Amino acid sequence: MAKTDVAVSATRRRTESTAECYARVRRFIDVLCETLETEDYVIQSMPDVSPTRWHLAHVTWFFETFVLREFGKNYEPFHSDFVYLFNSYYNRVGDQFPRPRRGLLSRPTVAEVRAYREHVDQRMLELLAANGGEGAKLASLVLVGLNHERQHQELMLTDIKHVLSCNPLFPVFRQRQDDAPLAQARRSWASFAEALREFGFAGDGFCYDNELPRHREFLEGYELATQPVTNAEYLGFIEDGGYERPDHWLSDGWATVQAQGWNAPLYWLKRDGQWRQFTLSGLRVVDPAEPVCHVSYFEADAYARWAGCRLPTEFEWEHAARELRVEGNFAEALRLHPAPASSDEAAGSSPMQMFGDVWEWTASPYVGYPGYQRPPGAIGEYNGKFMCNQFVLRGGSCASARDHIRLSYRNFFPPDARWQFSGLRLAR
Amino acid sequence: MAKTDVAVSATRRRTESTAECYARVRRFIDVLCETLETEDYVIQSMPDVSPTRWHLAHVTWFFETFVLREFGKNYEPFHSDFVYLFNSYYNRVGDQFPRPRRGLLSRPTVAEVRAYREHVDQRMLELLAANGGEGAKLASLVLVGLNHERQHQELMLTDIKHVLSCNPLFPVFRQRQDDAPLAQARRSWASFAEALREFGFAGDGFCYDNELPRHREFLEGYELATQPVTNAEYLGFIEDGGYERPDHWLSDGWATVQAQGWNAPLYWLKRDGQWRQFTLSGLRVVDPAEPVCHVSYFEADAYARWAGCRLPTEFEWEHAARELRVEGNFAEALRLHPAPASSDEAAGSSPMQMFGDVWEWTASPYVGYPGYQRPPGAIGEYNGKFMCNQFVLRGGSCASARDHIRLSYRNFFPPDARWQFSGLRLAR
Amino acid sequence: MAKTDVAVSATRRRTESTAECYARVRRFIDVLCETLETEDYVIQSMPDVSPTRWHLAHVTWFFETFVLREFGKNYEPFHSDFVYLFNSYYNRVGDQFPRPRRGLLSRPTVAEVRAYREHVDQRMLELLAANGGEGAKLASLVLVGLNHERQHQELMLTDIKHVLSCNPLFPVFRQRQDDAPLAQARRSWASFAEALREFGFAGDGFCYDNELPRHREFLEGYELATQPVTNAEYLGFIEDGGYERPDHWLSDGWATVQAQGWNAPLYWLKRDGQWRQFTLSGLRVVDPAEPVCHVSYFEADAYARWAGCRLPTEFEWEHAARELRVEGNFAEALRLHPAPASSDEAAGSSPMQMFGDVWEWTASPYVGYPGYQRPPGAIGEYNGKFMCNQFVLRGGSCASARDHIRLSYRNFFPPDARWQFSGLRLAR
Amino acid sequence: MAKTDVAVSATRRRTESTAECYARVRRFIDVLCETLETEDYVIQSMPDVSPTRWHLAHVTWFFETFVLREFGKNYEPFHSDFVYLFNSYYNRVGDQFPRPRRGLLSRPTVAEVRAYREHVDQRMLELLAANGGEGAKLASLVLVGLNHERQHQELMLTDIKHVLSCNPLFPVFRQRQDDAPLAQARRSWASFAEALREFGFAGDGFCYDNELPRHREFLEGYELATQPVTNAEYLGFIEDGGYERPDHWLSDGWATVQAQGWNAPLYWLKRDGQWRQFTLSGLRVVDPAEPVCHVSYFEADAYARWAGCRLPTEFEWEHAARELRVEGNFAEALRLHPAPASSDEAAGSSPMQMFGDVWEWTASPYVGYPGYQRPPGAIGEYNGKFMCNQFVLRGGSCASARDHIRLSYRNFFPPDARWQFSGLRLAR
Repeated sequence: MAKTDVAVSATRRRTESTAECYARVRRFIDVLCETLETEDYVIQSMPDVSPTRWHLAHVTWFFETFVLREFGKNYEPFHSDFVYLFNSYYNRVGDQFPRPRRGLLSRPTVAEVRAYREHVDQRMLELLAANGGEGAKLASLVLVGLNHERQHQELMLTDIKHVLSCNPLFPVFRQRQDDAPLAQARRSWASFAEALREFGFAGDGFCYDNELPRHREFLEGYELATQPVTNAEYLGFIEDGGYERPDHWLSDGWATVQAQGWNAPLYWLKRDGQWRQFTLSGLRVVDPAEPVCHVSYFEADAYARWAGCRLPTEFEWEHAARELRVEGNFAEALRLHPAPASSDEAAGSSPMQMFGDVWEWTASPYVGYPGYQRPPGAIGEYNGKFMCNQFVLRGGSCASARDHIRLSYRNFFPPDARWQFSGLRLAR
Repeated sequence: MAKTDVAVSATRRRTESTAECYARVRRFIDVLCETLETEDYVIQSMPDVSPTRWHLAHVTWFFETFVLREFGKNYEPFHSDFVYLFNSYYNRVGDQFPRPRRGLLSRPTVAEVRAYREHVDQRMLELLAANGGEGAKLASLVLVGLNHERQHQELMLTDIKHVLSCNPLFPVFRQRQDDAPLAQARRSWASFAEALREFGFAGDGFCYDNELPRHREFLEGYELATQPVTNAEYLGFIEDGGYERPDHWLSDGWATVQAQGWNAPLYWLKRDGQWRQFTLSGLRVVDPAEPVCHVSYFEADAYARWAGCRLPTEFEWEHAARELRVEGNFAEALRLHPAPASSDEAAGSSPMQMFGDVWEWTASPYVGYPGYQRPPGAIGEYNGKFMCNQFVLRGGSCASARDHIRLSYRNFFPPDARWQFSGLRLAR
Repeated sequence: MAKTDVAVSATRRRTESTAECYARVRRFIDVLCETLETEDYVIQSMPDVSPTRWHLAHVTWFFETFVLREFGKNYEPFHSDFVYLFNSYYNRVGDQFPRPRRGLLSRPTVAEVRAYREHVDQRMLELLAANGGEGAKLASLVLVGLNHERQHQELMLTDIKHVLSCNPLFPVFRQRQDDAPLAQARRSWASFAEALREFGFAGDGFCYDNELPRHREFLEGYELATQPVTNAEYLGFIEDGGYERPDHWLSDGWATVQAQGWNAPLYWLKRDGQWRQFTLSGLRVVDPAEPVCHVSYFEADAYARWAGCRLPTEFEWEHAARELRVEGNFAEALRLHPAPASSDEAAGSSPMQMFGDVWEWTASPYVGYPGYQRPPGAIGEYNGKFMCNQFVLRGGSCASARDHIRLSYRNFFPPDARWQFSGLRLAR
Repeated sequence: MAKTDVAVSATRRRTESTAECYARVRRFIDVLCETLETEDYVIQSMPDVSPTRWHLAHVTWFFETFVLREFGKNYEPFHSDFVYLFNSYYNRVGDQFPRPRRGLLSRPTVAEVRAYREHVDQRMLELLAANGGEGAKLASLVLVGLNHERQHQELMLTDIKHVLSCNPLFPVFRQRQDDAPLAQARRSWASFAEALREFGFAGDGFCYDNELPRHREFLEGYELATQPVTNAEYLGFIEDGGYERPDHWLSDGWATVQAQGWNAPLYWLKRDGQWRQFTLSGLRVVDPAEPVCHVSYFEADAYARWAGCRLPTEFEWEHAARELRVEGNFAEALRLHPAPASSDEAAGSSPMQMFGDVWEWTASPYVGYPGYQRPPGAIGEYNGKFMCNQFVLRGGSCASARDHIRLSYRNFFPPDARWQFSGLRLAR
């Protein structure tokens, strides 16, 4: 893979205008959707999942609500009910159509939602053209909206994967060739000496409020695995009875294992004596060389304890990733599945696959950094109100856009969530 | 309305062949669906509701499973997984895709389901042509399938009504003109003397197993209202605090009122101080002259007690309807909503609107008639296994096909069900 | 067993005054409680079960509320909060402490509840002495109260059995010797010709409103088993996979079997390869000769279908029991468990064990008889408001007082209830 | 209040032997129970609550299982089933009687549980006498057991408070005089400069595994309120609509407010226009000068944000409490309710009431300190497996034993827990 500076990438490229960035980012969701049938857009397979229809409308709602209603001269909303229908959770904007009922709506239809997108895109481009697109507050809000769009592009992929997985026909979202067998990388350990370092976002590009303030943390010396845990390694845990004995689990984790009947990662099923997994390319035999994916924090934590290791903190992760310039496997490649590490690049002892492929669970509960303040207004509801009972994941996945991920990026999910492309890396 | 013999109507007309009947009945669902968007076919708004997609496929599955697999020479099933996917509840046929998960499927798509229908229709017509369509066992099974289809045509309407009602945009399923104001019929009472009579199906046409055996029941003298209870009358109950005091309710009914927060029939909502109701023609002001509709047994029973009356038994209903020849308001009219009684025909004192408009809750729990036996085989699961915790409704509704209803027809639903076109008629 | 006229027994003996009857009936609960520890009185093991404390207080509340508050001159309630705390479900008396929370109360203590009972008993006896106890309305209300007390004596036994069964120590409520092995009765069939007969209570003693009006029903000829189904017979059903296949079950029954994991009657468990059952005398090996007990309507119905028979209607049962004068095994014997039939008395072909031992599920849904009206006032809530989704049981059980049961007595429970002493008898 | 060294107190006093300590600590629960009725011991009012019976038995089980079975020569367990019945959550010891069903047991009775305690106490004292009680491993295990006992003494109080609160009679657990009105302390702020300090337990006494390893943390400068938030201050939040608007809440917190209908701290109710609270001394008017108590983390966090402040981290709390020597209001005083601060001692600007009165919610999720390892064996299940979705509380409460609390003590509960004596202190 080419070496580029993922760690400092940003949604908006230095060479493009806000309008160009807007057009480019918005266009990508159409690429992702091009294989979908109309029926696929409607379904909500669990409360955490949103229908594709809803994602398409909600990201447009974001621009209409926060940009066009504020900056657009004489802007006429496309439809008076959409401010309610497509609000996700912004209490300051108003009431919301209940999240668990998003899958009960067949109207507006997909075609109507596309018309809504076109309407808003046209007004957005007019607005950006009118003031050169570079008024500071406007540009900044547009950038928030495009980052928000990138997040929903990833969620759309994880959600449609969950939707399709409920179908015993195992529909294929996107065809994919089998990988040519690779000389497999051997895992080793990268060492880091104790250090007092600064963490959080630095620079002048975009970042979320939860990546700030930049502040100091002291780290003891530690070692970090050079690769994420693979399916082959994780199978060792399964075969050793990992899901059958409470020893390695958190108490809440073990209760979840029993209540949900977990015996393998999400999307794995055993058929004819062989483990298979549902992927966006249909049902496939589990490849031992790939990073294990769709495990919860509970499983990541239990695996690490079983292996005699632990999960890294988010600061240990960030410290190790600081100098890396290796391009990972991101959504743009349209593989949409984690790839095995190749042994070519594994000669040295620096960590591989820190960016892309799988989100890596860290041992860090998701809380504000010292001095963190919620931003004022509705945008302040974006991150701060979720700082409870979640854990931080780092590095992006095969479903993340490459330009959306950076060194200081903090993703977060509850410890039982498994439908994201989430894996783990060991520390000790 | 024209006077015809609803009471002895039957799915297959005397003048048509089985093949003609098959073609005619199957075609009607396309009429019903012609206003739907693809997205509408997918949604399951509660476990009792099935997506339109599923209804279209399941009625086809019925012919494939019970007719073509048995009688079709070298019949190749259209798709090997459909026997599982579209089985409703026939344990003897095999496992079933779980009912509450029917709304999680986007594939096969609507177009694929239509192809499935065409495939089966073609083979069915070939089969019926080959043996003249009149082999006794074959013809009899086809007739079961067509009656089954008629039931699902009605369920499809009640289900899509529930689906669309969840949408705050209140989509219109089928446009309808407002009724011209009618001279309203005055309710009176029809009297019946005590009698020992036979009940259940008689004749040589089709009937369900639960309409047999024909047997004797003794009835005391009674009076039956000449009309169903109207919205105006039911409003009296609401305004008298009917939903606020436990006095008139069954214990389970009152618990349901409180748990569900019922304060009016399903689909009613008060807006700007006025009661409106969601109909298949959108949200409309409640018309006082129409029969009240979408009430549960609990509400029908409580209303009757409040009014100082009671519900009739199913035998009292059948006895009163025996001689009637009045055409009602059925699905073929595509009004799809109960109509007010007209005073023209109400000159006499015989009951009106016994057939069509609204199903009428009776006081009779749904059990087998004396000597009832479940038929052998999978078809035996059709009616008998539901004889518990349900009540009998009689007479058909505005969503029933006219040729599906007859004097001895027994519909049945649990006492809290409201999403059928169900109303009531008083007895004393 | 001695032959006496159970069928026409009544709570109040002809030879005793209301006051004597009051004293005798009220005393029996103390006999039943004499083996209990204080801790046993407190527990509610499921919402249907009430703590013994509560039963003791509620039956006293009944006399205080309906008799002393109305007839007692200057009656001072024992405690101002008890009218609320110990009301079961009489909405017309006022609000009720929520039923599922009865097990959250430790106060008033058992000693305080006993003081409450003594207070009320003393005032009741004074009241009955003052007016000779025979004022018609007073005597009638007292009789309702004593019948109510008899019902709660039985419920207290079924409830404490459920409570103790939750304890892995399997406490013994009352010691009992093993039965001497009996020559076992052979089941045969008693035949009844078709008949038009009157049903419901006749006579001048006490009956509940739901035993009236006396009315006519027409019965086809039928056969009734001379004995209830025994454990040995029921084991045949279990061993034939009765709980593993849906064929014989009602749809709701099969759903319950799967949701609850039923594989035998309530209180049965297999230990060391042998079926045992928890009884009020502790854990004991299942005796094949005893009537099967603690089965739901669902199980009774499925067993009957498996056996190629059916359950009798309540009228078939009543018709067959009309002439019987055989004393059964009732609560007064303090065996508190069904007894095997003895072959001595089984020489003939008349039904045995119709009264006592086990309540017999009938095929009749619990509804009002033709012309039934709820009595006015709070007492009207006693029976009428439960006429929905329940089935009638007949004949009393080993936990019923002998003087509480009569030919026309109708007990009723939902079809999934198993904690009463409920069994079945076949018809065909 | 007298100034003593709470911060370095320990369960075992320096002047007493292990046996003396054992006798002293075990005796205290009898003091706490002396006002209870037998019925009170049985009830479990929610799954988090255990019956008093169970607490009495479980702490005894701890000594039997971990000390007597290992060190007691030829020790005969008191009852073979108790190892199962009274195991809380130690999977390595074996299966456990399900926690939510603890309230279903009436046997062993309270008297039998007391006999169990006496049996174990006698063997424990014999064992401690035999080897001088000072064998290092034995003494260490006994100390764990006594600390465990102290925790259950507090839980017993919080649990019985919850049990009694469910009773509309509001039973008094322990009589208490009203406080004489105090000159109320004025809250001010104590300032702390930035510092790199060591945290966690230091010394040679007892501590839990989760207080280790001692390690360094860097703190920015901060201010800490000199008093916990009072009822008067908290009423300001309520009256400002704190429970009615989502603005100040975490998303999970707001969902809990709505689902549970919270509108004030647990045990508060408004009667005759006045806020009252259920206390262990019955229902009393809310005293504005007392620290607010029985608030969840969600409420503490929302209050702090409303007040323009935040909660301190556990390290900020520990840093500030390091030098304090003020005796607080602990369980030994048998007040069992938080006390107002007195203005006498509030002259200076150092924090008051850091120890005792109310547990103080911190902003710190409960995780292991850097380098934390679960201890081996069953004792390793004590703390480590709960490190997920909980927050740290510090300082002890009016229901904690004074000798159980120390500077480094970490208590932890989920963010919605309110039945502990939990309050808060502001930081900024």
